[in-house]
Amino acid sequence: MTNPSIPGPNHLEDEREQDHSKSWPLLSPCDRRSFLQGATATAVAGATTLTWPAWAYRANDLEVIRTEIERRHDESVKRLQDWIRQPSIAAENRGMNEGCELTMRMLGEAGFQQAVRVPTDGQPGIFATLDAGAPRTLGLYYMYDVKQADPAEWSSPPFEAALVDKPGLGKVVMGRGAVNQKGPEGAFLAALHAIRGAGKKLPVNLVFVAEGEEEIGSPHFPQIVRRPEVLAALKNCLGIFMPSASQGLDGEVTMTLGAKGVIECELISSGERWGRGPRKDVHSSNKARLDSPAWHLVEALATLVSPDGNDPAIEGFADKARPMSEAEKKMIAEAARRLSETEAKKLLGVEHWVHDVSWREALELLMSRPTANIEGLVGGYTGPGGKTILPGKAVAKLDLRLVPDMTAAEALAALKAHLAKRDFGDIEVRMTGGYDPNSTPADAALIRVETEVYRKGGIDPVILPRSAGSWPGYVFTGEPLHLAAGPFGLGHGSGAHAPDEYYLIESKDPKVHGMDGAVRSYVELLYGLAQAG
Amino acid sequence: MTNPSIPGPNHLEDEREQDHSKSWPLLSPCDRRSFLQGATATAVAGATTLTWPAWAYRANDLEVIRTEIERRHDESVKRLQDWIRQPSIAAENRGMNEGCELTMRMLGEAGFQQAVRVPTDGQPGIFATLDAGAPRTLGLYYMYDVKQADPAEWSSPPFEAALVDKPGLGKVVMGRGAVNQKGPEGAFLAALHAIRGAGKKLPVNLVFVAEGEEEIGSPHFPQIVRRPEVLAALKNCLGIFMPSASQGLDGEVTMTLGAKGVIECELISSGERWGRGPRKDVHSSNKARLDSPAWHLVEALATLVSPDGNDPAIEGFADKARPMSEAEKKMIAEAARRLSETEAKKLLGVEHWVHDVSWREALELLMSRPTANIEGLVGGYTGPGGKTILPGKAVAKLDLRLVPDMTAAEALAALKAHLAKRDFGDIEVRMTGGYDPNSTPADAALIRVETEVYRKGGIDPVILPRSAGSWPGYVFTGEPLHLAAGPFGLGHGSGAHAPDEYYLIESKDPKVHGMDGAVRSYVELLYGLAQAG
Repeated sequence: MTNPSIPGPNHLEDEREQDHSKSWPLLSPCDRRSFLQGATATAVAGATTLTWPAWAYRANDLEVIRTEIERRHDESVKRLQDWIRQPSIAAENRGMNEGCELTMRMLGEAGFQQAVRVPTDGQPGIFATLDAGAPRTLGLYYMYDVKQADPAEWSSPPFEAALVDKPGLGKVVMGRGAVNQKGPEGAFLAALHAIRGAGKKLPVNLVFVAEGEEEIGSPHFPQIVRRPEVLAALKNCLGIFMPSASQGLDGEVTMTLGAKGVIECELISSGERWGRGPRKDVHSSNKARLDSPAWHLVEALATLVSPDGNDPAIEGFADKARPMSEAEKKMIAEAARRLSETEAKKLLGVEHWVHDVSWREALELLMSRPTANIEGLVGGYTGPGGKTILPGKAVAKLDLRLVPDMTAAEALAALKAHLAKRDFGDIEVRMTGGYDPNSTPADAALIRVETEVYRKGGIDPVILPRSAGSWPGYVFTGEPLHLAAGPFGLGHGSGAHAPDEYYLIESKDPKVHGMDGAVRSYVELLYGLAQAG
Repeated sequence: MTNPSIPGPNHLEDEREQDHSKSWPLLSPCDRRSFLQGATATAVAGATTLTWPAWAYRANDLEVIRTEIERRHDESVKRLQDWIRQPSIAAENRGMNEGCELTMRMLGEAGFQQAVRVPTDGQPGIFATLDAGAPRTLGLYYMYDVKQADPAEWSSPPFEAALVDKPGLGKVVMGRGAVNQKGPEGAFLAALHAIRGAGKKLPVNLVFVAEGEEEIGSPHFPQIVRRPEVLAALKNCLGIFMPSASQGLDGEVTMTLGAKGVIECELISSGERWGRGPRKDVHSSNKARLDSPAWHLVEALATLVSPDGNDPAIEGFADKARPMSEAEKKMIAEAARRLSETEAKKLLGVEHWVHDVSWREALELLMSRPTANIEGLVGGYTGPGGKTILPGKAVAKLDLRLVPDMTAAEALAALKAHLAKRDFGDIEVRMTGGYDPNSTPADAALIRVETEVYRKGGIDPVILPRSAGSWPGYVFTGEPLHLAAGPFGLGHGSGAHAPDEYYLIESKDPKVHGMDGAVRSYVELLYGLAQAG
């Protein structure tokens, strides 16, 4: 596992990102000047403007709530522990019903007037609303499922949610789902309890959607979001966010204004389907008289990229790829100045960027370039040494990353047409997951307030136009909702998808926030959004 | 497992051939005319001529020995069972010392005056001699090791050597090594016991070499054969053979006059060695800014073959490939007439030969074409579905088949030079096994006598110029020995490298010989060679 604490696009090496379903990017510093640059550059989009200093207005409210957060600290931690102790693992169909029910009960306790189970063709989702009679409404995206866990690999049992002292860091809760995503999600619920406990009224209404299949790639997520009553509620929101522990070990945060889309697919070359070569593995000496599905796959793959293996050569694939705007290029140039190339190369284990480009160009490519990547090759004999077979089947696992204005459907169609045109139409293209890119304007109120909350916390986030990873935010940012969307939250944790996952409860480092600091960041976000001009 | 009983080049689908170390081909019918054609066509090579009818001369001897074989039937079966009950598995380093000792003891009991253990860098070999004071000497190649066995997969425990009634076939001994190779080897020892027991003198002297690493690719076999005392003994031989159960379920036999050579190698593309791309797996979104060792491998592979994936395009690889002679083409044309194309396609699970060639052309390609085959592809994520990684390493497992006068060393050098010339010099070529092709003249005394024994047994073997599979016979047929070499023996068995391996003891079908018939074929071979003109 790599260290998710390093700010910037290096967050892509975090374990959370090693699964296709994960790409709420970890956030981290951009100075006042670059924030303003970004804001100015995108002002043409012409969205809500923010009146500063807005926070002063409710300074006393916030002081009272802060005290209440501290008073309720143990209660919040206990609630989080109880949640972690209920495993809900979609991949194993384990505890899903219990996890869904528990989450709905927690929503009710936190003040949601309505929380309903939303059936899908897979695991149920949750739709909930909290009407505070406020003029503004904020959307919330939750997941209530967690990744699998092998207890043998953990130093503390994954569903015991023990409080553990982590040297140099502080007190953490250790357990599956601690940071991904129950810790931050629990901190947001704690914010609602604290506001109410302090005798204050929630300054914004909330619309909540949750899924129980985030860890298996959100296959039925659109079935939840696209229900008429959910769409109707969401369309009133000024944005939607997922609570997230965005701080690295050094306290830094990187924000991204959207994400690439992705197609994951398998290219399956088989004698069965091809009608040439063997249907099953045969002795390799037969190559002399038989076609080979494995070579057929290799030849097909070679047509998908430039001869150096770097640039997609799929006909029509990237025709609609939108070039970077000048504003986006400026954001990246600023990020290139602030982020460490040396650190990034070290984390990735590389010495050269593709085509030996500069650090700035590497960041531009990362955010703007559609890609065709081989995730895996599986064919014939895969054990140690050799085995003299001519395999009847060979498979390449690919992911294609998409930028606006490409779509997953068009990219898939281009791939299939490309293969068919070159006599590889027999190669099955089995899409296993994917969705469109998403994009949120830099001057969206949500983004501006989030940025200001970070800055109040002493963190100047680096802002990037796009995450090179992917998440299905298009359901929010695309038709018909056009919502600003992204992850948010102070706080720190690590080990998502890995053993000894943890979420920081009490921090020893003033730059890195514990749970109470995370809870405060959510309170500040709600008040900030209520005040945004 | 496929059925090894089908004669002809279909034997290549036998499990015995699924391992690189295996290619003593199963043998099977050529009529009088085609035998003579072959003999005539290669008579220019000018070897020993055979005076017929030679057998009549010792007809009485053979009658007495035949009776002795039957009298000793139970003793022979018991000896074979005892041998099977001693597992010697090189891959598990299990029972190797015991297996070697037992084999040497069995040689002594069969009449060898000398049997010595030959140390190698791996498992020991055996060198033994039986001086019968005869004018002629025959070489014998044995293996005393067997393949691994998982008892859970067997209907009778693999090292119990139970006698089992196999419906439609007869009584068999079931156990690991039963047919590969202890059954036939045991039958040959039974022939020596029968000759001595009948009060007869062995008509030829014997030089015996055995290895204990046949099942792991014979890596130290040359260390045994190339010892001065072994070479000195072998060079007096008129040929060398391995006892083999050559009959299919229908009793047919195919003989091959040599075998292709082979190189097995892994092509390993890694960021570590390349100095580009990541050293370990990183998140796939990084493809936008990083080179990919997997694409690098795909591009390199694509240069190794013609665009249809069929013909090797490795520069200089096949420069020395010797075209088929007219005599060889005639043999193949005859084989194409006698062998069933329909049966061959059915067994292989194919509908078309490469380039849609005819059956005769397919057989010509099989025997004459050097090949580049992908045995396996292994890179990155190989489990179900996808995982969004950019792998730091990808591997292709290849085998290259060689025909005379190519050599393994030159082919490997050509492959490396080809890659280096095309900027793929960073891709590691790790040779895991291989050796030169081998060839035995059709008119060699050994081949002629073997053919005649089959014909006396009512079997007209199909004779092919070469096996498309490979075995390290070059140590015998090449410098400095130039011996005729190949497998021989009546009898039947199946399941080599698979569960429920068996060797036929008592046959219900008069066309398929049981153990006594196999023993007789060895007696007839020895007498035939003694008499060969």
